[in-house]
Amino acid sequence: MKPCDLSAVDAIKKMILRKLSPVELLESCLARIESVNGTINAITAMDIPRAFEEASVAEQKYARNDDLLPLLGLPVGIKDLNKTQGLRTTYGSLLHANYVPENDEALVARLRRAGAIILAKTNTPEFGSGSNTNNKVFGATCNPYDLARTPGGSSGGSAAALATGMLPLAHGSDTGGSLRNPATWSGVVGFRPTPGLVGRESRTLNYTHFSVQGPMARNVTDASLMMVGLVGNEDRDALSSFVDASMFGNLDNVDISKLRVAWSTDFGGVAPIDDGIRRSFKGVIKQISSGFGRCEERHPKFENARDIFWVLRCVYYLANHSERVAQHRDTLSPNIVSNCEAGESMSLIDVARAERNWAELYSNFQDFFADIDLLIVPGNAVSPFSIAEGIPKSVGGKVMENYVDASLVRSALTLTGHPVIAIPTGLDEVGMPFGVQIVGKRRGDFNLLSAAKGIETMVSANPSFLVNRPDISKYIE
Amino acid sequence: MKPCDLSAVDAIKKMILRKLSPVELLESCLARIESVNGTINAITAMDIPRAFEEASVAEQKYARNDDLLPLLGLPVGIKDLNKTQGLRTTYGSLLHANYVPENDEALVARLRRAGAIILAKTNTPEFGSGSNTNNKVFGATCNPYDLARTPGGSSGGSAAALATGMLPLAHGSDTGGSLRNPATWSGVVGFRPTPGLVGRESRTLNYTHFSVQGPMARNVTDASLMMVGLVGNEDRDALSSFVDASMFGNLDNVDISKLRVAWSTDFGGVAPIDDGIRRSFKGVIKQISSGFGRCEERHPKFENARDIFWVLRCVYYLANHSERVAQHRDTLSPNIVSNCEAGESMSLIDVARAERNWAELYSNFQDFFADIDLLIVPGNAVSPFSIAEGIPKSVGGKVMENYVDASLVRSALTLTGHPVIAIPTGLDEVGMPFGVQIVGKRRGDFNLLSAAKGIETMVSANPSFLVNRPDISKYIE
Repeated sequence: MKPCDLSAVDAIKKMILRKLSPVELLESCLARIESVNGTINAITAMDIPRAFEEASVAEQKYARNDDLLPLLGLPVGIKDLNKTQGLRTTYGSLLHANYVPENDEALVARLRRAGAIILAKTNTPEFGSGSNTNNKVFGATCNPYDLARTPGGSSGGSAAALATGMLPLAHGSDTGGSLRNPATWSGVVGFRPTPGLVGRESRTLNYTHFSVQGPMARNVTDASLMMVGLVGNEDRDALSSFVDASMFGNLDNVDISKLRVAWSTDFGGVAPIDDGIRRSFKGVIKQISSGFGRCEERHPKFENARDIFWVLRCVYYLANHSERVAQHRDTLSPNIVSNCEAGESMSLIDVARAERNWAELYSNFQDFFADIDLLIVPGNAVSPFSIAEGIPKSVGGKVMENYVDASLVRSALTLTGHPVIAIPTGLDEVGMPFGVQIVGKRRGDFNLLSAAKGIETMVSANPSFLVNRPDISKYIE
Repeated sequence: MKPCDLSAVDAIKKMILRKLSPVELLESCLARIESVNGTINAITAMDIPRAFEEASVAEQKYARNDDLLPLLGLPVGIKDLNKTQGLRTTYGSLLHANYVPENDEALVARLRRAGAIILAKTNTPEFGSGSNTNNKVFGATCNPYDLARTPGGSSGGSAAALATGMLPLAHGSDTGGSLRNPATWSGVVGFRPTPGLVGRESRTLNYTHFSVQGPMARNVTDASLMMVGLVGNEDRDALSSFVDASMFGNLDNVDISKLRVAWSTDFGGVAPIDDGIRRSFKGVIKQISSGFGRCEERHPKFENARDIFWVLRCVYYLANHSERVAQHRDTLSPNIVSNCEAGESMSLIDVARAERNWAELYSNFQDFFADIDLLIVPGNAVSPFSIAEGIPKSVGGKVMENYVDASLVRSALTLTGHPVIAIPTGLDEVGMPFGVQIVGKRRGDFNLLSAAKGIETMVSANPSFLVNRPDISKYIE
């Protein structure tokens, strides 16, 4: 196994034992990027000189066994929607194609302070709009399991880079599932934390569950390790507060046979789901359910989720993009323009209704969760679609009204604010990676990650759920 | 001094030493209520039999020195907007004039668990709309310093009951200043905590700073003691999380000569303020400023606060009252109807703009607070107006566009989500109580209360700031 294929936790262990140096790890990642990124197009920018400098410093620290920060010497990717000092940040938009920030944004700075090497930026659709990863600056990122298909999005660059061993850890963000969707389509893990846990100083609305920042990795323990660097209070973030990040470095060992689990394929007919995915999901549930203390089908009350999400998304989009749309309507992604146009025709009464229904959904979800520990749901409504197709036009035979309706199996969970992790659970009927979302209790991020680690262990012991890493030999340049 | 005139903390001390029994305290409060409530009209309902039962139980606990809960045996008033088991709860509305809840809402239950005796309900305008305390069910509450004037509102019943010794502690709630305004007009203390700290299970919007629940008392230490019973996590409240409530029972001793303080009369011309109040406030600042480490005039960026508050309030009002207005337009308070009508003519774009400006205001306020500990602001824009007048039609010679514009000196602070305490600081030019608002750092509730206790000590040592209790002998029946 090459260093770049090690899990983050294993790489750290080897570096502590001095069986691996941060410089070797960096070289291995760079070699892999060199081999496959030309084909996959996951990484959009790199700061190689600085990465080597920092890897050298990390090497010395490991040599002296001194100041061994939790992420010391791990190369990390940052989604191209987040500012990185001296490292090109385009938001996937021609409007910012040549922007090089002078400073890191806070979560990037926190990762650096935790010892991470900010090596690369990862591809995203323009301003993160769409469950794909394609834009006019860098083009499309390919799914490493089938180059004609999307890895999902909007954190698709991060997912594809992880799947192919270009990076051990990568950052993502999530509104309607932008880190859960590409994780499940690329055979990796994506964690959407409780809003506010990863404080961000530049949010455009005080109180929204859009967009939450989180870790992506090749396994649950790695994702949790990355939380040690991501979690932090930012006074400018109304949702954030002081939390001890270090606990995420040491997950509990959970006896999953004690867990009370509910599962739902489509929230009782609310979320559109393709038949094949439905079967794949039920196959997973059938095989894992006996591992829990209790596991029963039960549906949260999400009847209004679609409308709430769409109205709140319109508020969010107009708050973020109204001036941009007014000035650059013709060059902007049609997803952004159509979302803003939908909002322009709505009234304050629509918002008041959505807000009230949202509070009711939230409240109902607390009752739903009162006597369970976890909720398990499919990670996706469809198989990864072709890059040419763009976004799924219909799901389960039903035509989608807008570009986010196919995401309802994820976006309804966004509204709850509960932590959600997406983990791989085998292949779907077309042979592409398939995964599930596991939802934890309110503010129960640590317990969810601990439980997910146990479920991951159970799942990976079952050959029918095996997701091999993609066969990169096919397209190494 | 009669038991009902003791501070809550002193009453507890005496009960612990068995120099006072909870039954005596209750009898004293009831005697005072009997004497003055006919004139003041602060209390709308009581549960005397249950109060005596609970006072007896508390008496036994004190006798046995067993299970001495922090609020054990203290009679408490609850604003008539909050559900109390077996105790009439009207919301100040003819629509609910005869409603007797079967259960306590969570914060009431928490107060009981902390040992409080829920003796009484306190008057409020219909659904809390308006900086006065008048409604069609119970009529107007009078200011005990001048019966023709309002005690302010909407927590005016609580303020007037405290000022006249009917209760040692009372609950209030605050959107545009509903517990700060009556506190400063009635010579008592009102504390608006960080939203979420006092969790509430029945909020109609997930994320709003309207309306925050908090304590009212005759001094800062008493208000903080009440927090021990009020603070609590409620899963159904999106803003709430786990916090140790017990710390509020033991404030720090703060050396106020180390504090860095900013003061602002009107946020740089943003908030309308009457000239007399302006002079009173500057008189206070002049006398107290030398007591701090640093004290300088500085204005937060609140230029958009008025519009943000009004648009968000329209969302809140339509979410709460749209069906009620449709069905009962003619009987409802005109404040509610006009607020909903204003919202009906607004668009989603208006909301998106207000939300974005709100996030900017929040962000700017963090910069403003970066190198200060406290901000001091007038508690009111005008002197208590006459009950006949209803709400202030003009302030500082300027006609107010709507019924909340006169509250901007408080409502702008609501938008920040920072904790704010209102304390008495003497009389204004017409001889009515006058007070200031003290704003603490983000999530700095405990530190603010500790500092406010120090400021209260400084202020009360100065004869020119003395606010005697109202002379109730004039109207004892």
